[in-house]
Amino acid sequence: MDEALAALPQGELRDAMAYATVGGKRLRGFLVLESARLHGLTEDAALPVALAVEALHAYSLVHDDLPAMDDDDLRRGMPTCHIQWSEATAILAGDALQTLAFELLTDEAIGDAAARLRLIRALARAAGAAGMVWGQALDIAAETAAQAPDLKAIKRLQGAKTGALIRFAATAGPLMAGDDVAALDGYARNLGLAFQIADDILDVTGDEALTGKRVGKDSGAGKATFVSVLGLDGARAEAARLAHDAVASLADYGDDAENLRDLARFVIERDT
Amino acid sequence: MDEALAALPQGELRDAMAYATVGGKRLRGFLVLESARLHGLTEDAALPVALAVEALHAYSLVHDDLPAMDDDDLRRGMPTCHIQWSEATAILAGDALQTLAFELLTDEAIGDAAARLRLIRALARAAGAAGMVWGQALDIAAETAAQAPDLKAIKRLQGAKTGALIRFAATAGPLMAGDDVAALDGYARNLGLAFQIADDILDVTGDEALTGKRVGKDSGAGKATFVSVLGLDGARAEAARLAHDAVASLADYGDDAENLRDLARFVIERDT
Repeated sequence: MDEALAALPQGELRDAMAYATVGGKRLRGFLVLESARLHGLTEDAALPVALAVEALHAYSLVHDDLPAMDDDDLRRGMPTCHIQWSEATAILAGDALQTLAFELLTDEAIGDAAARLRLIRALARAAGAAGMVWGQALDIAAETAAQAPDLKAIKRLQGAKTGALIRFAATAGPLMAGDDVAALDGYARNLGLAFQIADDILDVTGDEALTGKRVGKDSGAGKATFVSVLGLDGARAEAARLAHDAVASLADYGDDAENLRDLARFVIERDT
Repeated sequence: MDEALAALPQGELRDAMAYATVGGKRLRGFLVLESARLHGLTEDAALPVALAVEALHAYSLVHDDLPAMDDDDLRRGMPTCHIQWSEATAILAGDALQTLAFELLTDEAIGDAAARLRLIRALARAAGAAGMVWGQALDIAAETAAQAPDLKAIKRLQGAKTGALIRFAATAGPLMAGDDVAALDGYARNLGLAFQIADDILDVTGDEALTGKRVGKDSGAGKATFVSVLGLDGARAEAARLAHDAVASLADYGDDAENLRDLARFVIERDT
């Protein structure tokens, strides 16, 4: 990311973009690299794609944390972008990180023009008003709705809000290679929901010092989550079932997919 | 635009995106269509590019109008997006309009994969942290700077904030065709500054009923503009000189470029 940012004009905007991309679990970047490796692609080819999905994810966090959205002051153990800088700079840094994500996908190191266009179209669909941003809009609408969303509605919401980008990341390899995305898409659909359930569990049981963000926020606000609908034990059981299904999706990849299997097991046991 | 938006899930997010793209002068879309025609491309090929640049421009207006940015309540004769809907919806609608712009540029109707990638890279550079968003960040920084920007600094700022996207639009034709962009880029560089000077003049002399946005806002806030630095007569003379240079850049296109010449003349005489 440093190299991509170094090409930009100096100033607070670039500093805020760098700040927003530091730290984090790099789950999505890891998925891109593993997915590309499974489809015979080099790390040099996959790296700009991994950076693109992390830039896109960083933009979404910066905007989600804004006062008009989730109004969060702590992220990755540090003040959120609008606290560290200003609301205007946070809006602009998020905007420019989204642009940077698409620019990174034009990198010739990724592959031929057709491969890059497949990635760009897939990222746009995952990120836009039928994907991640749609999920965020549903989430905001749910907070003021008369009726709390049921399990099906929460799955639809989270499938868009966090799932779409995870699915893009996990299918980046077959997208680049022009191969079938079905197995990795199935893996990512299950992984994404398991990941979100673990997030909801951590909101109730987690430690701010470990998670690097405020806990008890969603449950305290009476927000409908997987835990509020399924209970703690029910949520844990559902996450375990989803992680199992994620692992099962990888059968055809054999031993090569062991890192992705480990990830699915880790996701439901994490404490950060 | 209606067709692109119709493919999205129904709801307030899509409604706000549609709201934000209604009206306006369509200057950038017009530049794309004319530029494409001059380079032998069909309107079918140019239309997704024109829609993309208008979507990108609409996103920038929605975010610029936010309370944390320019805090405007009137745009194109209607309440701004965050007034009509909410701040959260305006942030998300802007975000999704930027995504939509890049998705539109993947349309196969535009041309081969290489042509589409040239456009995507050029739009990313024009829109991001070295282009439009950088200009907006400079503009915000200038408001709180101890020293008002001089003419050179204002030209640099506006060359990025409004100029970069106008240059993208005007060079879309040669970008699609793989031709030299120099003549149209020269035209657009001059046109963009002339357009911005006319905007600053209208902020002082304009009529809200005609412009559809608040006037006297920049001058009232003591903001450095072309008018505050050059005076009204000086600004008018500079705009006329730039429009003349814009026209002169088109010499090699002959009579085919008459619409673009008319536009350069219109830009400095407009009252909206």
